[in-house]
Amino acid sequence: MKEDLTVRGMRDYYPAVFSRLDHIVQAWRKTALSYGFEEFDGPIIETLELYKIKSGDEITSQLYNFKDKGGRQLALRPELTPTVARMVAKIQNEAPKPIKWFSIPRCMRYEKPQRGRLREFFQFNVDIIGEDEGLSDVETIGVAIDSLVSLGLGSDDFVVKINNRDFVSGYFEQIGISEERTTRLYKIIDNAGKIDPSVTDQQIEEFGLTKDQRRALEQYLAIGNTADLEGMKYTNRGKEALLEIFSYIDSAGFGQFCALDITIVRGLDYYTGTVYEIFDKGERMRAICGGGRYNHLLREFGGAEVPACGFGMGDVVLGEILDKKGLLPVYSKKVDCFLVRITEEQLPYLLEAARRLRRKGHVVEYAYRPLGVKKQMAKASKSGARTAMIFGAEELREGKVILKDLSSGEENTVELDSALA
Amino acid sequence: MKEDLTVRGMRDYYPAVFSRLDHIVQAWRKTALSYGFEEFDGPIIETLELYKIKSGDEITSQLYNFKDKGGRQLALRPELTPTVARMVAKIQNEAPKPIKWFSIPRCMRYEKPQRGRLREFFQFNVDIIGEDEGLSDVETIGVAIDSLVSLGLGSDDFVVKINNRDFVSGYFEQIGISEERTTRLYKIIDNAGKIDPSVTDQQIEEFGLTKDQRRALEQYLAIGNTADLEGMKYTNRGKEALLEIFSYIDSAGFGQFCALDITIVRGLDYYTGTVYEIFDKGERMRAICGGGRYNHLLREFGGAEVPACGFGMGDVVLGEILDKKGLLPVYSKKVDCFLVRITEEQLPYLLEAARRLRRKGHVVEYAYRPLGVKKQMAKASKSGARTAMIFGAEELREGKVILKDLSSGEENTVELDSALA
Repeated sequence: MKEDLTVRGMRDYYPAVFSRLDHIVQAWRKTALSYGFEEFDGPIIETLELYKIKSGDEITSQLYNFKDKGGRQLALRPELTPTVARMVAKIQNEAPKPIKWFSIPRCMRYEKPQRGRLREFFQFNVDIIGEDEGLSDVETIGVAIDSLVSLGLGSDDFVVKINNRDFVSGYFEQIGISEERTTRLYKIIDNAGKIDPSVTDQQIEEFGLTKDQRRALEQYLAIGNTADLEGMKYTNRGKEALLEIFSYIDSAGFGQFCALDITIVRGLDYYTGTVYEIFDKGERMRAICGGGRYNHLLREFGGAEVPACGFGMGDVVLGEILDKKGLLPVYSKKVDCFLVRITEEQLPYLLEAARRLRRKGHVVEYAYRPLGVKKQMAKASKSGARTAMIFGAEELREGKVILKDLSSGEENTVELDSALA
Repeated sequence: MKEDLTVRGMRDYYPAVFSRLDHIVQAWRKTALSYGFEEFDGPIIETLELYKIKSGDEITSQLYNFKDKGGRQLALRPELTPTVARMVAKIQNEAPKPIKWFSIPRCMRYEKPQRGRLREFFQFNVDIIGEDEGLSDVETIGVAIDSLVSLGLGSDDFVVKINNRDFVSGYFEQIGISEERTTRLYKIIDNAGKIDPSVTDQQIEEFGLTKDQRRALEQYLAIGNTADLEGMKYTNRGKEALLEIFSYIDSAGFGQFCALDITIVRGLDYYTGTVYEIFDKGERMRAICGGGRYNHLLREFGGAEVPACGFGMGDVVLGEILDKKGLLPVYSKKVDCFLVRITEEQLPYLLEAARRLRRKGHVVEYAYRPLGVKKQMAKASKSGARTAMIFGAEELREGKVILKDLSSGEENTVELDSALA
């Protein structure tokens, strides 16, 4: 045996593994379609430049990039959003709004492979382009929730943590923190939900704030729910938007899955309004999904300024959660009917029957080499088939075959033509 | 608008384009499943070495290859067969035989983009591993035929040209042409079906043959069907295998789609028995599919020697043929029900109804911004929905909504709960 030729961080999707991925993919697809989203895809290879537009030069260290034989700087897509922006920019003048698109792209990242992170993964992407804040944000959140629910997860298993970037930026602007300094502050807030409070205290200390600013920041971090938000005398567009979204969420019946969490800011600086992340409620809260509103992004890719929102949800963390909870189906090959011939003389009848049954969509198998009836019946049982159709000379002389129910063992002699119809 | 950032030879799968690809993919999948094949996939990134095993160093010029940041020589898969061989080698001791696998991988080739050839494409791969020549070859041919038939093509549209490498090599061995020279001869034969006979004559002239050899080669090229084959006094294993396969093909009812064609040799030297190519019968015969038996290939990838056969069928040429014949469905978004509110006060009821209907698998849409009823109804018609569900204050007070059939215009006031059930 040669050395293992599999590339590190890549996956081999053997049938049992493939069926688990497919189970997730079909749940994503079905849910997005039920919301009236249209499926699309882009190429796996894009220009490296496309990713630099949004993420700058440092993105190069996190993706697979290379020069092709024509000297072009190319990259394997690490995410779909730049592709969406590029594709929408091309058609946004003609396309009726809103554009409601979803995709389940295969993506690659050059990262250290670890639990929940692989170098190749699939990501459910859902976007609404051409609609302002409000219901469209709730629609994308609804797709995320319903796809998890259709996979068997409930409000005990995950939570959608929602915030609004306008609310955060408006709040800090109001207490006099300059725009340049907010990036660092976002990082502190983002971490506040994940690390020991004393570390957060120290980070705030080092950040340097006036006494009033410090008090205001503490008040910010103390916001626990929408009631706290409503009670604040402070107000801005982001606060109203948050309250509006939560009222839609409650009406739609998604309230049990959602919570206000003011530590959610989504590091990337292109978000402009609603932002959200979905976490599992396991021992170690892991992000299953992240999304939000990105009203300026399309312009950066050469399109017109158009409001947009969406999310991405990967298969790896989700697959691990479903697996742990026993929510992935046990794989078994599905066979409807196994065809058995008493001797090789009946093979021509069997072959024609196989073709006709398969054309009707039935899953049909038979032995590819001459075997005794006992061995063929053993193969039939092993295949998981429900029925064996037995071709014998005597029965065929009268245009008949034997149908055997492989669970009950019951046998019936029936007309071949009616068995095939 | 910035310059076009799309990479040459890559495709953007806008929803209408995606749906055409998906139409083909679903036909492939359904057919392979009906034959009892299991779906699998491999990674897009493999080691460059994997492709050199089969195809030598020259393959490097035809694929995308690069060094990753760890200095590994990697490649984007140009085909799936080496991945199949690698994956099977890992499990072939435990796995019950035959292994019947299919996959629809996305592949990349560094080729000059032209009609029927793109740098990114999808390829239907079907393989049976662990079975000798005979019925298993016919099974893979059957999958190829039935998938084309399920896409609407018939025996007027395509032909499966079948030959046997053992027959070819046995024939030329018998007339005394040394093994080293057969590669060149295969190329001449392969071309003979595609170019002017006078050019073939000249190539044979240049190849250098004795008078007897020349006569034998002419006799070979004159074989037009299985009757010619049966009439030959010359015989070897390949000839018997060919006659056996055609008898199975006739029994199964695939005879109208198949023809013996002794110019089919499949250039790559790993084929060992049955070989076949499917051509469209259009003005310019183009290969839709190619396959055959490769009994020694797995050993080269570190596995045990195990008989195997299979084929690959790309989406690009096939898509062009289906398109030309009007066999690709016209794309339209499918919406079951469009929800309309008389005023924004009914929005909460609408949102809950949307969630409940969607959970049941119905495709539901509504307007994301406050619009008058007329505008909402216009959106409903435009969406292609069959029904509008209208939420008015008066009806809701009695727990009712109006259902409007958007084709007939008929309206009915019904219980909301029963409309959602």
